[in-house]
Amino acid sequence: MQERKKAVVILSGGLDSTTCLGVAADASYDVYALTFDYGQRHRVEIEAAKKVAQHYKVKEHRIARLPFLKDIGKSALTEDLYDVPTRGVQEGEIPITYVPGRNLIFLSIATAYAETVQASAIYIGVNALDYSGYPDCRPEFIEAFQQVAKLGTKVGVEGLPMTIETPLLHLSKADIVRLGTSLGVPYELTTSCYQGEEEACGECDSCRLRLEGFRQAGVQDPIAYRKQNAR
Amino acid sequence: MQERKKAVVILSGGLDSTTCLGVAADASYDVYALTFDYGQRHRVEIEAAKKVAQHYKVKEHRIARLPFLKDIGKSALTEDLYDVPTRGVQEGEIPITYVPGRNLIFLSIATAYAETVQASAIYIGVNALDYSGYPDCRPEFIEAFQQVAKLGTKVGVEGLPMTIETPLLHLSKADIVRLGTSLGVPYELTTSCYQGEEEACGECDSCRLRLEGFRQAGVQDPIAYRKQNAR
Repeated sequence: MQERKKAVVILSGGLDSTTCLGVAADASYDVYALTFDYGQRHRVEIEAAKKVAQHYKVKEHRIARLPFLKDIGKSALTEDLYDVPTRGVQEGEIPITYVPGRNLIFLSIATAYAETVQASAIYIGVNALDYSGYPDCRPEFIEAFQQVAKLGTKVGVEGLPMTIETPLLHLSKADIVRLGTSLGVPYELTTSCYQGEEEACGECDSCRLRLEGFRQAGVQDPIAYRKQNAR
Repeated sequence: MQERKKAVVILSGGLDSTTCLGVAADASYDVYALTFDYGQRHRVEIEAAKKVAQHYKVKEHRIARLPFLKDIGKSALTEDLYDVPTRGVQEGEIPITYVPGRNLIFLSIATAYAETVQASAIYIGVNALDYSGYPDCRPEFIEAFQQVAKLGTKVGVEGLPMTIETPLLHLSKADIVRLGTSLGVPYELTTSCYQGEEEACGECDSCRLRLEGFRQAGVQDPIAYRKQNAR
């Protein structure tokens, strides 16, 4: 029997990363899920990630603590001083929710993990459309990282494959919801709210993007919201 | 008065990174030192790093805990299961002391830190000669990372400088000792031993490289050794 391919999936417990896991599972990968605990406000995400990992019966689920990210970064996602933006992301603007170097750090650790378990792929749910303001969500960043991962690791030097898979890169939120729904992704287990309460606020940019995605896809969002803007 | 340039210096407390800090200080940078605590055997390094940072009166010294690296990596530097190699590094071989993705993770976090404090340079004491077996010590890796740091950060996107400085990249250990000695680097505060005891063992690969470097440079190594191979 041929050994199954292995993939590391960066799993936040949100809609995008859970869809990513669904894509990796659908591609018959043995999944090694990796969740980061960086003192984010939305700690309920970590609980969601655990449930998602369980649902997919992943080979392993690691939670990497990054206690320093809160100290080093200055961002609405980790700093209580700032308010979470609710006015939408402006064109060409880098949002205050941007955490310096976040995807760079996440991908670096995922690369180390992939090398250790001998995974040939790393899945990350970056999206260039909804997060156009984040430099580390752009295709050119992912391409450059692919090169670094190849040059900086033993498996890369030995010529073994190590690809960064970004199945959501060019999808709209509605496309992501459609894709995930077709793959039976358990969206009822996920959470996307920046506020990090048990029940999603329905008002922060992340909730609004999610709700709009479900609406456009014509799919009912299975999670509960405290409030939903009528539109 | 013109504001001084800022540099993040990755500081392990060993000979190379301390020399790097000496070079950055000599170049009139305000230094933001960054030390990683990843459950390494040589925890005395962290104490050494603190003393070195104090000596140089750095602007800030951050110690970033990476508790997961011990779990994720499999290496003689973090695993007690393995013996520390004492037989020298063989040509073309990746040593067991290689920690998967270590410099990639270190540089990624340094990039995030640099972005936060608005540093324009990151100093890392990688060396392509003595550590030829480590993929993440090669010039091509550093160049690729430079590109990633530019593309993945807000400062890079905004066109501000963010360079990876590797002043030791092509130096022999003896050259490094000569350079540091000329800059008055306090080698008496440093430690390089893989065994991580208070007194250096004098026998592990790292001690041997260090001792040989001092010998070739014609400089007395100021630290104490438990044992020194006569040669």
